[in-house]
Amino acid sequence: MSQFINARETIVTDAIDGLLASSGGTLARLDGYPHIKVVTRADWDRSKVALVSGGGSGHEPSHAGLVGKGLLTAAVCGEVFASPSVDAVLAGILAVTGPAGCLLIVKNYTGDRLNFGLAAERARAQGLDVSMVVVDDDIALPDIPQPRGVAGTLFVHKIAGALAESGADLATVTAAAERVIKCVASIGMSLDTCTVPGSEKEARIPEGKAELGLGIHGEPGVSQVDFTDAGEAARLVAEQLAPHMAEGSHAVLINNLGGATPLEMSILTGALMKTPLASNLSMMIGPAPLMTSLDMRGFSVSVLPLGEGDAEALRASVGPAAWPGVVDIKAPTVALLPDGLSPERPAPSAHDERHAFLLKACEILIAAEADLNALDAKSGDGDTGSTLAGAARALAGAVDRLPLASLPELYRAVGMELSQTMGGSSGVLLAIFFSAAAVGATEDEPVGDALTRGLERIKQVGGAREGDRTMIDALAPALAAFPRGLPAAAGAARAGADSTASITKAKTGRAAYVPEASLRGNNDPGAEAVARLLEGLASRP
Amino acid sequence: MSQFINARETIVTDAIDGLLASSGGTLARLDGYPHIKVVTRADWDRSKVALVSGGGSGHEPSHAGLVGKGLLTAAVCGEVFASPSVDAVLAGILAVTGPAGCLLIVKNYTGDRLNFGLAAERARAQGLDVSMVVVDDDIALPDIPQPRGVAGTLFVHKIAGALAESGADLATVTAAAERVIKCVASIGMSLDTCTVPGSEKEARIPEGKAELGLGIHGEPGVSQVDFTDAGEAARLVAEQLAPHMAEGSHAVLINNLGGATPLEMSILTGALMKTPLASNLSMMIGPAPLMTSLDMRGFSVSVLPLGEGDAEALRASVGPAAWPGVVDIKAPTVALLPDGLSPERPAPSAHDERHAFLLKACEILIAAEADLNALDAKSGDGDTGSTLAGAARALAGAVDRLPLASLPELYRAVGMELSQTMGGSSGVLLAIFFSAAAVGATEDEPVGDALTRGLERIKQVGGAREGDRTMIDALAPALAAFPRGLPAAAGAARAGADSTASITKAKTGRAAYVPEASLRGNNDPGAEAVARLLEGLASRP
Repeated sequence: MSQFINARETIVTDAIDGLLASSGGTLARLDGYPHIKVVTRADWDRSKVALVSGGGSGHEPSHAGLVGKGLLTAAVCGEVFASPSVDAVLAGILAVTGPAGCLLIVKNYTGDRLNFGLAAERARAQGLDVSMVVVDDDIALPDIPQPRGVAGTLFVHKIAGALAESGADLATVTAAAERVIKCVASIGMSLDTCTVPGSEKEARIPEGKAELGLGIHGEPGVSQVDFTDAGEAARLVAEQLAPHMAEGSHAVLINNLGGATPLEMSILTGALMKTPLASNLSMMIGPAPLMTSLDMRGFSVSVLPLGEGDAEALRASVGPAAWPGVVDIKAPTVALLPDGLSPERPAPSAHDERHAFLLKACEILIAAEADLNALDAKSGDGDTGSTLAGAARALAGAVDRLPLASLPELYRAVGMELSQTMGGSSGVLLAIFFSAAAVGATEDEPVGDALTRGLERIKQVGGAREGDRTMIDALAPALAAFPRGLPAAAGAARAGADSTASITKAKTGRAAYVPEASLRGNNDPGAEAVARLLEGLASRP
Repeated sequence: MSQFINARETIVTDAIDGLLASSGGTLARLDGYPHIKVVTRADWDRSKVALVSGGGSGHEPSHAGLVGKGLLTAAVCGEVFASPSVDAVLAGILAVTGPAGCLLIVKNYTGDRLNFGLAAERARAQGLDVSMVVVDDDIALPDIPQPRGVAGTLFVHKIAGALAESGADLATVTAAAERVIKCVASIGMSLDTCTVPGSEKEARIPEGKAELGLGIHGEPGVSQVDFTDAGEAARLVAEQLAPHMAEGSHAVLINNLGGATPLEMSILTGALMKTPLASNLSMMIGPAPLMTSLDMRGFSVSVLPLGEGDAEALRASVGPAAWPGVVDIKAPTVALLPDGLSPERPAPSAHDERHAFLLKACEILIAAEADLNALDAKSGDGDTGSTLAGAARALAGAVDRLPLASLPELYRAVGMELSQTMGGSSGVLLAIFFSAAAVGATEDEPVGDALTRGLERIKQVGGAREGDRTMIDALAPALAAFPRGLPAAAGAARAGADSTASITKAKTGRAAYVPEASLRGNNDPGAEAVARLLEGLASRP
């Protein structure tokens, strides 16, 4: 699959340029492209211990995205999945190291160890105080002599970063980093491999399987396991981590390996908190993409027993937006549903005139069923007549339960009935029409004024205006004519409905997808229904 | 492909549970599962205008991930890509709306408009002050009557959120939201469709093509365009946006549609800043996943002309970690490479004894080439002899350029020569060995002490210890015996080298991947080289 890159050779430099562009001037880079790709804090004055990390690219936001106050001072970026050169690392060290010295945080890969190691030596030869720690948090292989450095590295960055920012000396920062490295443990799981830009994707993991214990460079996991669901995935990962956890409370870091959706990451987080692991966890970082492996659809979980000062260091505020913060793990708050979701049905009340009027309206709509269906068949799915007739039948059947003696209550009740008996958009729109009419209505308010309020609301909610070939084309002129009596309103509705036959560009509803030729000469069925209704009400005895 | 879910029916509720678990108690939900999925601020006291948004899920962090101080007060979550019910929206409104009222921020999709609209009406019927705005920022179709609401919605959330948090009244917050909606414009581009959980992925976009002008529900884009590279993609998007931009400076929001890697997003950001659009931009949000479409490998760009107070509102701090912040766009800082990358070559100086000693050492290694290669062939790629001999030849050729009269300078110079002439890990390790020996060395310090410093450093950097079947198995005992003279050191090196023949589990380097049977009975070639060298130096005239 294509990727949003320009050329394989410029992936990392192009990405660094973009990162700088979105940094608001907080980041700088060294003028060493293409070989020296070093991102530094732009505001760095060398007055404190510098933290330098890096390695191959493809793990964003690690490491350049973690440069900023309270985290890294500089990141040395290699090409995708390739260690940066000794010269690049040395440039990074020299660019940021002052009298307080520099800590190199290196993930346990041979290339990184050697290149950072030699660069450190060269920097020392120039009189700089440089220490180096190697993160090896991956527990995938129980007996592996050289465990990989994966997402647990973030704990090192954060805790060492907070100490350095607070002005601690190099020995203190280094000792804290070494202590974290000693006790942090991580493991990852993935449903798919990553796509290295410019290479064919290796389809290694069959459907229904997941890889457990994988690194961050696309290398195969330690084992392929059956994948059933997120809960089981979380359980497996928790089971692997359990033997590596100490007594006491831990911080957990939930890392998106790049291609899992936020939805999946939240589901995994919820699942993890249902495993036995949860009882040992008191702080959480993520879920967030922190140490990714390009677009790998996977996640990793890292745990750190909280030593002295760790909680405070994890909480310290930082500059980089990529750091998601840390939270105390708390039981979720589930609030009772609010009152008012099921409004009380108003008490029925009598009003002969309105009773008759409503039944008449229902009869008219029921009688128009076939005609309206036929009209709708030309521009839609031919059910406008049945939808309205069905609602009319239901309303007629409910008329004795309605609060006929109170106009405001009646509007609202009609709206409620229609929303419950009439499907689709039109049911909702008519419910809104009558509900809005009810808001602020009084017994003395002219009906036309109340309904005009309803009209305004359905125009807003539905997004249709006069001329859009909807029932509004009949309803709007009818309500405008309402003060002059029902016959005037009916006449205006008829003229409005007939005008829709020449509107061949519908803007809303299904008719928007119908060719112009099918619309020309046919009234909009909703507008026609309004006209029929008012004509009927105006003319019938 | 599998996804990290438990069951299709519980995707959204499981994800909300996970979101709550990672919220540190800042979020609560209503007890209305499975139909009512409403996430609210846990600290909400109804003293200010409430902001309620939502819609179908699959757009995370929108909307539940945006609930918090300064952004949304509540999010009403539908199933994936499906509008929430009227009851769910009403529950959300009722749960958070106090005397100051509530603004509903709805994206322009019929289902959302209608369901939020009717819920608003019902809430009004209960006496609540509710206003509603509909975001229609998508410019994909020039003449579309009902543009979709996409990532520009974030501008509405943020600006209305800041105003509401500052205590503005509902009319003011609503007016600001409407002003933003009127002038925000967005367009998206994608290289692939999204994978709706439980559905087959639609392979709609062929290799080499991209879709321009797509929505956030997997619907096809307005056009398929040739995809060449990120620069061209950014140019196309900028071209579409240009006619929708006003005079004056704009904020830009760069949104990851879900499946683009951070690397790609940075590359796109860099590319966008090279288009003519950049000259009109003064603030940037992202790149970040803000309004995603599950795992769609695409991006969108939204632009907003900055009205009065907008910059301040965008900058206001917020609770949700998903909000990436906003930065002022500044020209990137490119710093000069630091001094010291190419250390001055020390002035050559004479010292006959050391001259002869070095040449002798080189001769010994050159003579051992074939034997060492043969040994290495049994556990590696058979080039240890040639690698060492090549370095020895280069060093012998350079001996007259070395600062022979100064031991510290000599160590460092030898290290530098080796790192430049000897490839692979061993060259770096020997460079580190000699460079570390040089640090703090004096003319009077015994050579063995200086080299022991080098040994300690290569143990740290390389990660190997005695017994790991490396040259350290000869070097360590040799240096320990060094004070007793060269013959003692040579004897110790020989014993150490011979001991490696019985170490069948290598921990580092290539031999770690070699079967035990291939290692048994053969000395490690690196250790053998050390032994040969010291034996030769001790015995030869």
